[in-house]
Amino acid sequence: MSENYELNAEMAVLGIEARNAARAMRQLSALEKTAALLDIAAALRRHEDEILRANEQDVEAAKRADLSAAVIDRLMLNHVRVEAMAKGTEDIAALPDPVGRELARWTRPNGLDIARVSTPIGVIAMIYESRPNVTADAAALCIRSGNAIILRGGSESARSNQAIHRAIKDAGATGKLPAHAVQLVETTDRAAVGMMLKGLDGTIDLIIPRGGKSLVARVQNEARVPVLAHLEGICHVYVHSAADPAKARAVTVNAKMRRTGICGAAETLLLDGKCPKELAIQILGDLAAKGCEIRGDDTIRGIFPAARPATEEDWHTEYLDAIISVKVVDDLEKAIRHIETYGSHHTESIITEDRAAAERFLAALDSAIVLWNASTQFADGGEFGMGAEIGIGTGKLHARGPVGVEQLTTFKYVVRGNGQTRP
Amino acid sequence: MSENYELNAEMAVLGIEARNAARAMRQLSALEKTAALLDIAAALRRHEDEILRANEQDVEAAKRADLSAAVIDRLMLNHVRVEAMAKGTEDIAALPDPVGRELARWTRPNGLDIARVSTPIGVIAMIYESRPNVTADAAALCIRSGNAIILRGGSESARSNQAIHRAIKDAGATGKLPAHAVQLVETTDRAAVGMMLKGLDGTIDLIIPRGGKSLVARVQNEARVPVLAHLEGICHVYVHSAADPAKARAVTVNAKMRRTGICGAAETLLLDGKCPKELAIQILGDLAAKGCEIRGDDTIRGIFPAARPATEEDWHTEYLDAIISVKVVDDLEKAIRHIETYGSHHTESIITEDRAAAERFLAALDSAIVLWNASTQFADGGEFGMGAEIGIGTGKLHARGPVGVEQLTTFKYVVRGNGQTRP
Repeated sequence: MSENYELNAEMAVLGIEARNAARAMRQLSALEKTAALLDIAAALRRHEDEILRANEQDVEAAKRADLSAAVIDRLMLNHVRVEAMAKGTEDIAALPDPVGRELARWTRPNGLDIARVSTPIGVIAMIYESRPNVTADAAALCIRSGNAIILRGGSESARSNQAIHRAIKDAGATGKLPAHAVQLVETTDRAAVGMMLKGLDGTIDLIIPRGGKSLVARVQNEARVPVLAHLEGICHVYVHSAADPAKARAVTVNAKMRRTGICGAAETLLLDGKCPKELAIQILGDLAAKGCEIRGDDTIRGIFPAARPATEEDWHTEYLDAIISVKVVDDLEKAIRHIETYGSHHTESIITEDRAAAERFLAALDSAIVLWNASTQFADGGEFGMGAEIGIGTGKLHARGPVGVEQLTTFKYVVRGNGQTRP
Repeated sequence: MSENYELNAEMAVLGIEARNAARAMRQLSALEKTAALLDIAAALRRHEDEILRANEQDVEAAKRADLSAAVIDRLMLNHVRVEAMAKGTEDIAALPDPVGRELARWTRPNGLDIARVSTPIGVIAMIYESRPNVTADAAALCIRSGNAIILRGGSESARSNQAIHRAIKDAGATGKLPAHAVQLVETTDRAAVGMMLKGLDGTIDLIIPRGGKSLVARVQNEARVPVLAHLEGICHVYVHSAADPAKARAVTVNAKMRRTGICGAAETLLLDGKCPKELAIQILGDLAAKGCEIRGDDTIRGIFPAARPATEEDWHTEYLDAIISVKVVDDLEKAIRHIETYGSHHTESIITEDRAAAERFLAALDSAIVLWNASTQFADGGEFGMGAEIGIGTGKLHARGPVGVEQLTTFKYVVRGNGQTRP
């Protein structure tokens, strides 16, 4: 009881400090934010030894706790990864400042001059699993967009995150960045997350969860403030009857196998029943040759006996692994229907040389990203030319698709008059 | 128990019908939506007698239940008000279609052609108090923006809402509008609202509450889906030392007294201590002459003895009535500090001839609308030239300020390639 009272007070102070920092950050110039980011990049390099020592302890503890190889790989830092954090921070420093842009401006008949101007969102809370690089990336994206950030990483990466945070604070000591622009929740008490989800007395404007489905689902269910997240990416590739065979083969294998663990990886392949049987066999063979398990419907198993049977559950599943579910559909409309039924509104691609079919697919589907003759793995802020991203939005509000620095801003209306009153 | 089971099933069907209607509405052309809106306007006129008869029963029941005169005035319809609903629907029919606009388009070095295209949000749930005109307005705004809507009005207006809804359905019977584009929750069981707040199995994309503070607060606290709302409008007018006296007088009295019950009405007046005492007395006299109660700090009470003392509570209060709290502040920075402490991020105005002071005020404040030398009562979609509005957003995400048809859309990325794969 008394401990929770203390934690409550500690978190409340954190919220107030963040709110005050956000007010100061709204006033920073583009140049001041750029300088702060370059200072942080230098500090990350300067602190490399300390960061790697802290990370070593985290990794050893994770090994003792018998965590999976995948978790340990995400947790582990080395010279190359610290350098990538520093370089990533420099790249974000080089992005155009997204704050203060005039998004629209018009004059009313009564002479009122109305401008819609981009502004920072305010205080962003980032709740993420044990990937220490997110600590640096998220901080940099929030600084570029003029937001204060409260970071809460997974407990397995606590020492690494603290070391990275010390580097950021060390950098901040000399520049214009407010001291509490980037705060790290150091307690591993999970009650702290619950308090953040409630918004810390109205000081948090936006929560961004990053991690597995259970983390994101918890945040979406419990949060009392807006959340920007994607729950899962059940991405589809539809090979239409008028597909170019070479494009169909190249795009499908890339969409599934380039990297299987990212949200833009394809999980289901829809083959039009009017595609040549040879093309279907070639595509499935390409995937199998790359080590992909095929789970097919009866038709697929008839032409590709190595395929296992797909169950209803498969069409709902984001494997994030070298597995693909494959279904034969009668036509374009059936493909659209399948995606609307089982998809997660993330990213879908049609492969076809038929412009009308492509445009129908692009218009009918309500996913954040729809592609024609291109790999679903392009679902990425960097590939979109937006610079780094903090995540991919699959909700309907505010921002969909890659969330970069521009999407971390909001706007206000600035109205200039000369004494107008409303009749 | 069995009743709730039935209600659950009924509401689930409502959600599924809305989702299906939303899919069909995404495909409607601008012209088809315009035709549907004109049909609805005609049907509202055709059904006037039925609507007025139903409304009479609602008003009589409200009188028997001893509801306040203000509630009954909002509830009451007559020929002029039905005509205003029909005319409002025609005005919305005349707005440019906000769907399918190309918001941005660029080509990547690898040849990918990326377009950001506006799309409807999907299914919008509107939860509102007993103002029957909202039934028609909200339906029209959602149809123009290609969204399906689920309406849940206050129980006092149930018969009126049903009559208006019958008119809308009657109109829809002949055109391209899906039968379930506009649905009304007819049960007065409050459990239905709870189900809507949970999102009806993921079918609701956005909830818009409209009504008093307690309704909005309940929706914001309980909703599991995004909410677009404003909780309150504690709007400020700051009369700077370099204010033009005539503008200061005209704008202040208009901001407070033009209509006191709307969210853009000023609630607090901040007078710069360097303003001439005569100007202060004139402004307070203007307000008092219009029947406004003045609640002032000690300085104000010294120069304007009719003022009552303002308490700490007053600075936090949205009166929505002919009352204003008045405070003398030392300078611009103190005015900004006061607004940041007590304001609700809705609308604030500075009156000054000093451009630098004005620009500082406009930049420093983080409200949805900031004005220079103009009345806070311009906080309105119509006055902004956006056509009708469904409300004013004071949150940070998606849309701030007036929420018109454009703000009722979202976007998706349409990417056209020629076989690109990601390296």
